[in-house]
Amino acid sequence: MKTYLECLPCFMNQALRAGRMTTDDDAKVKKILDEVGGMIKYMPMEKTPAELGANVYKIIREITGVNDPYKKIKQENIAEAKALYPKLKQIVAKSENRLLTAIRIAIAGNVIDFGVNKTFSLVEDISRILEQKFAVLDFDIFVEELKNAKSILYLGDNAGESVFDKLLIEEMNKPVTYAVREIPVINDLVIQDAIDSGLDEVATIISSGTTAPGTILELCNPEFIQKFNNADMIISKGQGNYEGLSENNRSIFFLLKAKCPVISKHLNVIENDIVLKNINHAKND
Amino acid sequence: MKTYLECLPCFMNQALRAGRMTTDDDAKVKKILDEVGGMIKYMPMEKTPAELGANVYKIIREITGVNDPYKKIKQENIAEAKALYPKLKQIVAKSENRLLTAIRIAIAGNVIDFGVNKTFSLVEDISRILEQKFAVLDFDIFVEELKNAKSILYLGDNAGESVFDKLLIEEMNKPVTYAVREIPVINDLVIQDAIDSGLDEVATIISSGTTAPGTILELCNPEFIQKFNNADMIISKGQGNYEGLSENNRSIFFLLKAKCPVISKHLNVIENDIVLKNINHAKND
Repeated sequence: MKTYLECLPCFMNQALRAGRMTTDDDAKVKKILDEVGGMIKYMPMEKTPAELGANVYKIIREITGVNDPYKKIKQENIAEAKALYPKLKQIVAKSENRLLTAIRIAIAGNVIDFGVNKTFSLVEDISRILEQKFAVLDFDIFVEELKNAKSILYLGDNAGESVFDKLLIEEMNKPVTYAVREIPVINDLVIQDAIDSGLDEVATIISSGTTAPGTILELCNPEFIQKFNNADMIISKGQGNYEGLSENNRSIFFLLKAKCPVISKHLNVIENDIVLKNINHAKND
Repeated sequence: MKTYLECLPCFMNQALRAGRMTTDDDAKVKKILDEVGGMIKYMPMEKTPAELGANVYKIIREITGVNDPYKKIKQENIAEAKALYPKLKQIVAKSENRLLTAIRIAIAGNVIDFGVNKTFSLVEDISRILEQKFAVLDFDIFVEELKNAKSILYLGDNAGESVFDKLLIEEMNKPVTYAVREIPVINDLVIQDAIDSGLDEVATIISSGTTAPGTILELCNPEFIQKFNNADMIISKGQGNYEGLSENNRSIFFLLKAKCPVISKHLNVIENDIVLKNINHAKND
């Protein structure tokens, strides 16, 4: 997915929000906004928003010297999600369709996102999403691919959401490789966050190598690329991974909540819709 | 009022919104965003948002060659407001406190603003504001100054809102000079828009000389400055005029709806609050 004009003011909003999160020094936040503003002109719009957005967070790291500004928030979100885990596990156990319920919960976790201009309340949002109608629901294809899959590559997104991913991984009951970002960017998962989420108990955790808040294959490491090419099934969480992979030509399942107008339009859904969308299933046969 | 960090992404949002309103050519809108982005670094933050925002609209004019992109919208809003006028006149006539009701209606008109990221529905918004509690209500001071005033300077804001200003001016029944912008900026009034609103029937219309979407005295013409210094009473509509005059040291009445977080914070009110706020009344005695 390319970058749209709407993404450019959004980069400035992200710069302000993340800048304020990282430092109390207004002069530094101003410098971040100056740099991001000046960068707009040189942004190649054919690249994905996640790739261009990576530069925003690079500038924040450089100007503030803080490597992982969302560290504390990530830990809090993981702890909050873990506290909900037993309850959600029960909901899955009691549900008519365990797999679909686990998918819903994994998508519900996708509300934990500081890259978009939204506030969230985990308990309320989960309750709502458990009842919400899917705007796209390629569940039958999901079941079919899952049945035949000997290996699954699962692309993580935000810290906290990861605990709900664990629940879906348990429900799928297949060998899973769980991929995370190479370096901290927004509240996206890095390896330690994935371990803190308990994902090491159910999956092999790897870094995709990307420094962007999304899976941009050109930025990924060879180990990941190999897994990506060879996995029987790929599950991709969240907007950033969608941005990087929406035009890929292998079968991918996108699980996400559409949280911005640009992504919603690209998916042909309405903002706040939830989606389980497959692309290229036929090619995987 | 100075410019806050929050205003900088807002300039980019305004550039995108007004750019899209002005041209269908995405390349031109991109160029507008490039220019505004590059300008951020050089913005003197001690100046008002209205003054810095003026540059955004200057860039749009220069890149698109369109002088008054909101012309059609302004005409539509004036027509819509005029259609409501007889009904609103009745509401004033039947109300317990005619002057206060006319003030409410004038503030209700302030929802017609394309500079902020809000949509509005004129009829619904007016109904709500007619019932809404004021967050600041310096009505007694208003009545007192009005009683003694032989001349009133009324600073207009948006086209359409101007029709409701007419209603308040009629209710005040004093000689009024109504000041508008020198050139089109967003949907703010210029002289022809004021005439189209019927303000020439109740007031002397002048240009303040400002090219900003607000009254920035350093940018105003001598005729206006003289009126400003000599008027017995000054009524200032909307956020842009507040930005320019909030630190002025003469008595001014600000009538507005707080439509952005920065203005709300500066006024110590909550977003969407309505305000009739006086400053420096004592100095006017």
